[in-house]
Amino acid sequence: MAQKFDVHIIGCGSALPTRRHLPSCQVVDVRDKLLLLDCGEGAQLAWRTTGLNWQRITHIFLTHAHGDHVFGLPGFLSTMGLLGRKSPLYLHGPASLKDYVEYSKAHFFDDISYEIHFEIVDTTKHQCIFEDRSMEVWSLPLKHRIPCCGYLIKEKPELPHIRKEMIDFYEIPIWAINNIKAGADWKTPTGEVIPHTRLTTPAEPARAYAYCSDTMPVQEMATWCEGVNLMYHEGTYADSESQLAEKYFHSTARQAASIAQAAKVKQLVIGHFSSRYDNENILFKEAQEVFENTILAHEGLKITL
Amino acid sequence: MAQKFDVHIIGCGSALPTRRHLPSCQVVDVRDKLLLLDCGEGAQLAWRTTGLNWQRITHIFLTHAHGDHVFGLPGFLSTMGLLGRKSPLYLHGPASLKDYVEYSKAHFFDDISYEIHFEIVDTTKHQCIFEDRSMEVWSLPLKHRIPCCGYLIKEKPELPHIRKEMIDFYEIPIWAINNIKAGADWKTPTGEVIPHTRLTTPAEPARAYAYCSDTMPVQEMATWCEGVNLMYHEGTYADSESQLAEKYFHSTARQAASIAQAAKVKQLVIGHFSSRYDNENILFKEAQEVFENTILAHEGLKITL
Repeated sequence: MAQKFDVHIIGCGSALPTRRHLPSCQVVDVRDKLLLLDCGEGAQLAWRTTGLNWQRITHIFLTHAHGDHVFGLPGFLSTMGLLGRKSPLYLHGPASLKDYVEYSKAHFFDDISYEIHFEIVDTTKHQCIFEDRSMEVWSLPLKHRIPCCGYLIKEKPELPHIRKEMIDFYEIPIWAINNIKAGADWKTPTGEVIPHTRLTTPAEPARAYAYCSDTMPVQEMATWCEGVNLMYHEGTYADSESQLAEKYFHSTARQAASIAQAAKVKQLVIGHFSSRYDNENILFKEAQEVFENTILAHEGLKITL
Repeated sequence: MAQKFDVHIIGCGSALPTRRHLPSCQVVDVRDKLLLLDCGEGAQLAWRTTGLNWQRITHIFLTHAHGDHVFGLPGFLSTMGLLGRKSPLYLHGPASLKDYVEYSKAHFFDDISYEIHFEIVDTTKHQCIFEDRSMEVWSLPLKHRIPCCGYLIKEKPELPHIRKEMIDFYEIPIWAINNIKAGADWKTPTGEVIPHTRLTTPAEPARAYAYCSDTMPVQEMATWCEGVNLMYHEGTYADSESQLAEKYFHSTARQAASIAQAAKVKQLVIGHFSSRYDNENILFKEAQEVFENTILAHEGLKITL
């Protein structure tokens, strides 16, 4: 069975508050490590409804310095201190947010029990900005009114599965198993070479999630995010507001779908909805005309990759 | 009928978020002018449920620079800008919050369409810090871990009501009415002097609301808030946590009630509940043993003075 790779939508509204949506925030659960993507106001309050454990948050990735993406951050960081967090927390985002975090810490929660490390992301480059045993995170340069970048979270391939019946048949000792998983063939006592591919079945293909908000359509996304399992792309406006989308450096739902189509992603979830829509049916319809496997984000939605 | 004087509780929790409470924020509606008291995270989101009009907010009074009282402020100020507010907004609070507001504005909403004026409050003095035709606002020095002050909002007395039947009887012309309301007697054409008290009935007594959070018990409150119609006093802890109350410069519910009793207030509402209580029955019980007319705050509560 594939290991955990879930996306939890905490907020998918835009700048103006509504009764229906919170500002931007998501949690990505990769094999029980939690990554926060953006941290709009109210994130720490809504967090409680996810049932996830604060202690498992290892990284926060921030797209840009607009309030609806970061005004929940001081409260979130402060509360983790009150709850006794000890392990260091790694923040990644555009340069101006480093100052914001430092200012907030110095004025409001300088006594917290854990370290905060802020790593500045170059929002103009598509590159790997974080890597560990189980994943890589790549920056995705976005086109917004201020420096802004999305994030591509790529699972690392798992090792192939051992075929137990073959191991038993050839009486292969346990010490050899990891080598075989890593690609070594097996030589029997009689000198017969058994290719490792006969002793294993392939692992599930590595999965990937792309988070693209806020942005105008960026054509390079088709290459950077080719074939990802899930793409979240902002679709702030309907076709009828396409001039607003252009003016404010946002995308229409239809444009989001075109990017998803060009990138041949498996599924698209749109969000960052303008407050003008009482419901997002029009956005859903216009996106789905271009890319069928589209869904609408909503608070509390959990998508398993 | 008395004019409007309502208190709306937007949040009455303390520092740690719970599923039941938002951090501190209240709205006081004095004759259709809205004053915001503190602005914890989520205030702009919960505001929507009050049905009140953003445009009528004239002043924001802040008690102290702890996150659970101010982390909603940047979002609130920013959103009023997005909604096209034009009239200036007056903020009052301890000195360190002036810098916080200026920093937030410079980094996140420097382009807003209205002016923000921040008036520093001397948290060590009990004095009138704001006055207009309908009210006075006085600072209430509190004892907390950092500079902190509460606020006393006092309605100005209304003019007495004219007794229409007496006006008709003496055939008093309309031009004289305002003078009579203001205290002038009436001289009839025959020279008879009719005392203004016979021509009017007294106005309703002026009302007052005291907001005291966060603080240890302050004995002077008995004098400063004597006889107010309503006092909100923090009652963070139960008796069993009185050592924590002392350590963190908070009050128990019982202490809040003792202050209310000493001040002979008409009604007490307690709030700023510690997250440790699944419900606040114990706080209610302990407060009511000392001061009977106590109620518990809750989100959405509206109290008419």
